[in-house]
Amino acid sequence: MRSAIEWCGDHLEVIDQTLLPARVEIATLATADDVVNAIRRLAVRGAPAIGVCGAFGVVLGLREGRPVEELVAQIGDARPTAVNLRWAVERVANANDPLDEALRVQAEDRESCERIGAFGRAELSGASRILSHCNTGRLATAGIGTALGIVYAKHAAGERVEVIATETRPALQGARLTVWELTDAGIPVTLIADSAAGPALRAGHVDAVAVGCDRVAANGDVANKIGTYALAVLAKENGVPFYVAGPLSTFDADTSSGDGIVIEQRSAREVTDLDVAVWNPVFDVTPAHLVSAFITDAGVLRPPYGSSIKGAFAALASR
Amino acid sequence: MRSAIEWCGDHLEVIDQTLLPARVEIATLATADDVVNAIRRLAVRGAPAIGVCGAFGVVLGLREGRPVEELVAQIGDARPTAVNLRWAVERVANANDPLDEALRVQAEDRESCERIGAFGRAELSGASRILSHCNTGRLATAGIGTALGIVYAKHAAGERVEVIATETRPALQGARLTVWELTDAGIPVTLIADSAAGPALRAGHVDAVAVGCDRVAANGDVANKIGTYALAVLAKENGVPFYVAGPLSTFDADTSSGDGIVIEQRSAREVTDLDVAVWNPVFDVTPAHLVSAFITDAGVLRPPYGSSIKGAFAALASR
Repeated sequence: MRSAIEWCGDHLEVIDQTLLPARVEIATLATADDVVNAIRRLAVRGAPAIGVCGAFGVVLGLREGRPVEELVAQIGDARPTAVNLRWAVERVANANDPLDEALRVQAEDRESCERIGAFGRAELSGASRILSHCNTGRLATAGIGTALGIVYAKHAAGERVEVIATETRPALQGARLTVWELTDAGIPVTLIADSAAGPALRAGHVDAVAVGCDRVAANGDVANKIGTYALAVLAKENGVPFYVAGPLSTFDADTSSGDGIVIEQRSAREVTDLDVAVWNPVFDVTPAHLVSAFITDAGVLRPPYGSSIKGAFAALASR
Repeated sequence: MRSAIEWCGDHLEVIDQTLLPARVEIATLATADDVVNAIRRLAVRGAPAIGVCGAFGVVLGLREGRPVEELVAQIGDARPTAVNLRWAVERVANANDPLDEALRVQAEDRESCERIGAFGRAELSGASRILSHCNTGRLATAGIGTALGIVYAKHAAGERVEVIATETRPALQGARLTVWELTDAGIPVTLIADSAAGPALRAGHVDAVAVGCDRVAANGDVANKIGTYALAVLAKENGVPFYVAGPLSTFDADTSSGDGIVIEQRSAREVTDLDVAVWNPVFDVTPAHLVSAFITDAGVLRPPYGSSIKGAFAALASR
């Protein structure tokens, strides 16, 4: 399977995710503006993929002769919720060799996915029916994915694994992207409406819920695709473990709790074409007490999260 | 506003709800088969409206000279989950004057809605921001509705009331029908994706959740539109009252708990046109412990429901 993001020497090629699953079309991004537009219109989405794409956007913008501060501001703000977009953009902006740094961001993301997959496979060894939300796989990262990376790792190891995928309104990333990439990989997938997740959990059809994350606060509160919070509450009510998978770069030590996370509101058109008031937040915040464990590229973090997250950062700093 | 179901002497006229909100078109149902088809293809939906429609279907079938047992079986089974369809069909089948009985079913449903509205207005006197699911209003009944009947009653009394309407995947009854009928009535309505209900509750945007019901078991377990269960769990988690509104005819004394309720599985096409496994239950069961109160045409029923439901039936029998 083609990687969602490929650097081609003087431009970036991405799978245009707005056209999936009907058409697999490659979009060519030759300027920083192209990158910002691709991120804004969701041609590239998924926090890690956005970070990698933004990293190369800085490279393209510098080659256009644009001021670095302007690039950091413009690309870093293309989507507000993900913390690793700004993190990746600043890494490249501050590097001596921007292209080398962007390639490193990409390679590290691939490696992070592999590590998350391995940690998750060990943690979810008893789970074969995994409920996933939104898209957290090959299309959302530069590698095998975060939550779906666990699924790919189990599949690659010959373990029985199947996915119950929520369709993920309003943009239908689950129905359009997750079903497409898992089917492409030969992994069984069953699509459900978001509201069918509750009965699926209650009926015992799910061994574990595994979601990605756009930003995790220092106390473990999770900002992720709208609907994540409901899954966490429903998993808790039904005694099913709820895992959050993501690289440590999505953890934001500077944000003490979920209350400090800006939630992106998108166009009402995504929900309806009617002339009616629409409240369309695209992410929600899941309180830390609903999370069974975080599966990161630095290992599995367990409650109490205030200290386990701090510990993971400390270990990272001392490496 | 035109009633959703009108008897016209020798045929039934219904608003074809599959075409809303784009077109308001009246479907003419002249035979029992027409009625069954209209119910099956969701041109008429909502448990009370289905019951009224089924009642007139028996009248039409008898006029066609069809055997009554065959009509009861065919019309009674047009949708499996609602209990009052079979209840209404059997009432008409057993009556001396079927047309008179069908008109009585319709008039009683209208009256039930008025009573539910009045009881609900008293019960929800402190609530102005009401979260509603699916469609439970003028299109779902022969009158002002069940859960939305409470909203109409508050509005008619000059009380401030607004509705947060879930879009209700997969068939989008909230987005298509609830938004249309409330806008038509001049009541403020905000549309949200089903998965945005959790954050709306958590953010304190909702004073009460009010849903309808297709069938209530003797212990208070509620079968209703898929997504109801998630709303109940999320309301409980956030300390928001969760009300179920419906006529006593939707309560099924013969079913001891939700485990005994058959849940309708509809076509995978409703969720997707992809060639993929789909689990598409159209109703779910909400355990009684998550319900704050039932608002019925016989008054407000409170926990413990085993005895309050039994008491309501006993009072009905002794009238």
